[in-house]
Amino acid sequence: MSDVAQTLEGWYSLHDLRSIDWEAWKSADDEDRAMALDELQAFLQEWSHVESAKKGSSTVYSIVGQKADFIFMHLRETLEDLNAVETAFNKTMFAKYTTKAYSYVSVVELSNYMHMSTGGDPMENPEIVARLKPILPKNKYICFYPMNKKRDLGDNWYMLSMDERRSLMRSHGLIGRSYAGRVKQIITGSVGLDDWEWGVTLFSEDALQFKKLVYEMRFDEVSARYGEFGAFYVGSLLNEQSFENMLKL
Amino acid sequence: MSDVAQTLEGWYSLHDLRSIDWEAWKSADDEDRAMALDELQAFLQEWSHVESAKKGSSTVYSIVGQKADFIFMHLRETLEDLNAVETAFNKTMFAKYTTKAYSYVSVVELSNYMHMSTGGDPMENPEIVARLKPILPKNKYICFYPMNKKRDLGDNWYMLSMDERRSLMRSHGLIGRSYAGRVKQIITGSVGLDDWEWGVTLFSEDALQFKKLVYEMRFDEVSARYGEFGAFYVGSLLNEQSFENMLKL
Amino acid sequence: MSDVAQTLEGWYSLHDLRSIDWEAWKSADDEDRAMALDELQAFLQEWSHVESAKKGSSTVYSIVGQKADFIFMHLRETLEDLNAVETAFNKTMFAKYTTKAYSYVSVVELSNYMHMSTGGDPMENPEIVARLKPILPKNKYICFYPMNKKRDLGDNWYMLSMDERRSLMRSHGLIGRSYAGRVKQIITGSVGLDDWEWGVTLFSEDALQFKKLVYEMRFDEVSARYGEFGAFYVGSLLNEQSFENMLKL
Amino acid sequence: MSDVAQTLEGWYSLHDLRSIDWEAWKSADDEDRAMALDELQAFLQEWSHVESAKKGSSTVYSIVGQKADFIFMHLRETLEDLNAVETAFNKTMFAKYTTKAYSYVSVVELSNYMHMSTGGDPMENPEIVARLKPILPKNKYICFYPMNKKRDLGDNWYMLSMDERRSLMRSHGLIGRSYAGRVKQIITGSVGLDDWEWGVTLFSEDALQFKKLVYEMRFDEVSARYGEFGAFYVGSLLNEQSFENMLKL
Amino acid sequence: MSDVAQTLEGWYSLHDLRSIDWEAWKSADDEDRAMALDELQAFLQEWSHVESAKKGSSTVYSIVGQKADFIFMHLRETLEDLNAVETAFNKTMFAKYTTKAYSYVSVVELSNYMHMSTGGDPMENPEIVARLKPILPKNKYICFYPMNKKRDLGDNWYMLSMDERRSLMRSHGLIGRSYAGRVKQIITGSVGLDDWEWGVTLFSEDALQFKKLVYEMRFDEVSARYGEFGAFYVGSLLNEQSFENMLKL
Repeated sequence: MSDVAQTLEGWYSLHDLRSIDWEAWKSADDEDRAMALDELQAFLQEWSHVESAKKGSSTVYSIVGQKADFIFMHLRETLEDLNAVETAFNKTMFAKYTTKAYSYVSVVELSNYMHMSTGGDPMENPEIVARLKPILPKNKYICFYPMNKKRDLGDNWYMLSMDERRSLMRSHGLIGRSYAGRVKQIITGSVGLDDWEWGVTLFSEDALQFKKLVYEMRFDEVSARYGEFGAFYVGSLLNEQSFENMLKL
Repeated sequence: MSDVAQTLEGWYSLHDLRSIDWEAWKSADDEDRAMALDELQAFLQEWSHVESAKKGSSTVYSIVGQKADFIFMHLRETLEDLNAVETAFNKTMFAKYTTKAYSYVSVVELSNYMHMSTGGDPMENPEIVARLKPILPKNKYICFYPMNKKRDLGDNWYMLSMDERRSLMRSHGLIGRSYAGRVKQIITGSVGLDDWEWGVTLFSEDALQFKKLVYEMRFDEVSARYGEFGAFYVGSLLNEQSFENMLKL
Repeated sequence: MSDVAQTLEGWYSLHDLRSIDWEAWKSADDEDRAMALDELQAFLQEWSHVESAKKGSSTVYSIVGQKADFIFMHLRETLEDLNAVETAFNKTMFAKYTTKAYSYVSVVELSNYMHMSTGGDPMENPEIVARLKPILPKNKYICFYPMNKKRDLGDNWYMLSMDERRSLMRSHGLIGRSYAGRVKQIITGSVGLDDWEWGVTLFSEDALQFKKLVYEMRFDEVSARYGEFGAFYVGSLLNEQSFENMLKL
Repeated sequence: MSDVAQTLEGWYSLHDLRSIDWEAWKSADDEDRAMALDELQAFLQEWSHVESAKKGSSTVYSIVGQKADFIFMHLRETLEDLNAVETAFNKTMFAKYTTKAYSYVSVVELSNYMHMSTGGDPMENPEIVARLKPILPKNKYICFYPMNKKRDLGDNWYMLSMDERRSLMRSHGLIGRSYAGRVKQIITGSVGLDDWEWGVTLFSEDALQFKKLVYEMRFDEVSARYGEFGAFYVGSLLNEQSFENMLKL
Repeated sequence: MSDVAQTLEGWYSLHDLRSIDWEAWKSADDEDRAMALDELQAFLQEWSHVESAKKGSSTVYSIVGQKADFIFMHLRETLEDLNAVETAFNKTMFAKYTTKAYSYVSVVELSNYMHMSTGGDPMENPEIVARLKPILPKNKYICFYPMNKKRDLGDNWYMLSMDERRSLMRSHGLIGRSYAGRVKQIITGSVGLDDWEWGVTLFSEDALQFKKLVYEMRFDEVSARYGEFGAFYVGSLLNEQSFENMLKL
């Protein structure tokens, strides 16, 4: 058996973080703002059609702090679909009042460290398919961060044996599981697709659970010795109404 | 008992650092500047209502050097409250004359390394609640910096045992306590919320005490071996009058 | 025999990544946009003449995410030719609606770790020449990333003996070969030409193969201990029609 | 005795590096340029009053290369004074033709590694006070760079004993002293005030002495093992006349 | 004898890399472009006077890729002379159509590792003076990069003895010498002057020789264990005619 962890992949994912150009927004005239809001709403509404057709899922959250003002998270069947949704947004009138903040390209992933296999083709297993092509949660809060497994002299994840990695991941997974019901987690793999190896997206009704979970895991050897973390983004759910409120002058 | 340091959390915190766009400010006409100042004053005054209602606390300091011109520090009950105060500022006319410099999202935190527990629910302890939901000091000077505990091969804080960490933190705390009366300190945790693990905000009547305290701690093993520090921001208290003076042409 | 890995070089290479300035594009009037598109098409068409004349090869892909909107990859006989194609693009009217995102200068390279030599002058070997002066694939997907071999204390590729390096590269090459038919790979060397040592450009009909290949290699000692990776860019093929569609408002 | 190196502090310091916006300067009309130059001259002249009143010292040098066009170095009694001089400059008409390049906040410092103490209150010692509140040299050349003492596994300055540090600093100081008469040095401490731990500002009649001194020190263990260096800025003295020449079109 | 490598210094050096603002250039009217080109030509022609007067040397190359469009390399007797040539360019009308890309300040240097000394004052030796105050080559290609010697735990160049360094540099120099006739090399020292310790500028009739030379050296212990490299810039010679062609619309 190969020493490489096998993975299953589902929908491609784009985290698209943007800031609002408040100065441009405030200097626009009422009519332009109204038209921009209409286009934004139409853009958001299209997502529900994609979701109904089971061809993807999207969600939008505000982001706290200066790093970004909001995040679109899109799951789609192909890279072209992600590119299309990105380009469609860029063409909206509303996009003119936003600036790029950060983006992340990845693909929903399940790792075999988790023993999900029951024999047979996993893609025939509806539970697995549901995890690979998930409807994105609409919880109150989101937390997103990219990460790597370290390759630093004595602390090199990729030089461990499959058994060592599996055993470490098992205890790591136990922490995650102890937050079941409090935090939903979507892991997306980005090796060969973007600058970090994984994206972690957490959803919860209580933002404090993000801190509790990530902090507890940091003491676990997988994170303590082998985790490298990128920027963290947190925010709260936006719907059509609250997005419009955020933009109302 | 778990090997993870237990923490108590209070109000969410936003450090919001901005620069003044002096060119835009100087080219504005007198009327626009007057209106912008009025909106700024109204924005600042709203904070005292929040503070009276015990729903948060805010303070504003100038920042020395080019990194930023001033900092708003806000404590609020929820992430949404922080987002709301941030968005409210962005909508003011004054915001148009500022640019983003840096921001930090965290939550006021007490760590159990400090043996604060006396049995019973700590959130029933008024002294602890007062530290978790503090009224921000209005001292003459502020010093803010984010930090991590290192995870670098042999110098890995998160691979130490709870006992080792507690013992190291105790001597670290003694240094802090020796500055009591000279420096007030608010620790905010940001694991899972922002890019560093903690934010440290110091307040003093004498800016030199920041240097003395941080320098002395740097020789303590907790900082010497395990501390990683981000950017440092220092400045002096602004009230409505001194803020207006700073902006007077 | 020298302990330095001998290499063969072919065409010089420029990866030229650009973003679209959507705001400028949307504010342009129809006539300007039409003229810009005409110039873009003319620019793209010139490539086929270069390719017919066997003086180089070029291809264009969209890029997913905010890092860039599209990539031109050019192979040419000399650095001046690359400079000329870059300058020609900058002079087009279309260039005005784009901004720089990233570029990479390198030269197509074959390494002698691969035992390609059969005695005789390798540049007389048509198979080798075809690999050094390749017609760029027009596969559905592209993946580009720059990389280094590490020089970090005990993990120093350049302090290994030729035999150790050859043996490590052999097993590394086996992984690559197992993806034959699924992924085409062009290695360009950039020591002395750009900031990283190599550029890796992968082409495939299935973007997931990029992830599978790069992930599998990461467990191989050459990557695990000695690989340092820059940013990853992925995207899908653009032809004249799909490029125009992307730009249609 | 504490293991922490005791320090004496004098005036606060602001290194304020700016670039000239040549395009704006060249497009301004003659009258605006003349007024801006007048304001600049007035701003520079105010410094001599501060210096006469022994309330601080300031100096201005050009900077070679693109990092900045000139540096203001200000010593003042308080952080507020520094903030005031910075804000005063921002309000001048000349500031409109400049952009921020870099700034550094610190405080003039003498370390007790140097055995300056003769018993008694050092602040009563006129020689020490003269070094803590110095009139800035008006030598032909300046060199400024920030630095840290390293904390990297086995090379951790802050884990050395006071004796080891004192002994290392003594030999380090000997190099410095061998440049007496050729290079003047002002050390400013910035722990808790800015992103590096110290700022080093050198003055000389011969720019080559900066290179000789810094290079010789780099072989000394204090720098070789424990020194971390930021950006280096070099330039030559500007007075009212040469500043005006620099700006004359 | 001191353990510090002695060096000889000649002319100060400024690498001044700029990008063309193609949008501004294309929107300028014909007359402005003609005037800007005239000023550029006059600026370039002044260099030959400096060179005839043996007061310095300058050269200009295009740069391939987005990092910059061209590089001016200037050697002059003093820092003020470099500052003057930089300021003179900034005042030209052509400068308005360019943006800063990168610059490097250093001084031509010969190291005594090379045993150039024959007793006597080296500055009386015409061969040495010719190397310290060189006329810059006008070869077809240029390659420029800054570098450091590493100070990283066990790999610390500055903790080696003089004998170890001399012996390592000797074998390093042999590689360089084997490229004699193919690559000319100018080493400029920048300790105390700019952010890296040395600048390496290579000239050749064949750009591939840069890759061959730098790659071969990378396996030499001096580079393999002790070399740290900044960005690499490559390009081809520009004269008045080819510079004008590059700019012709």
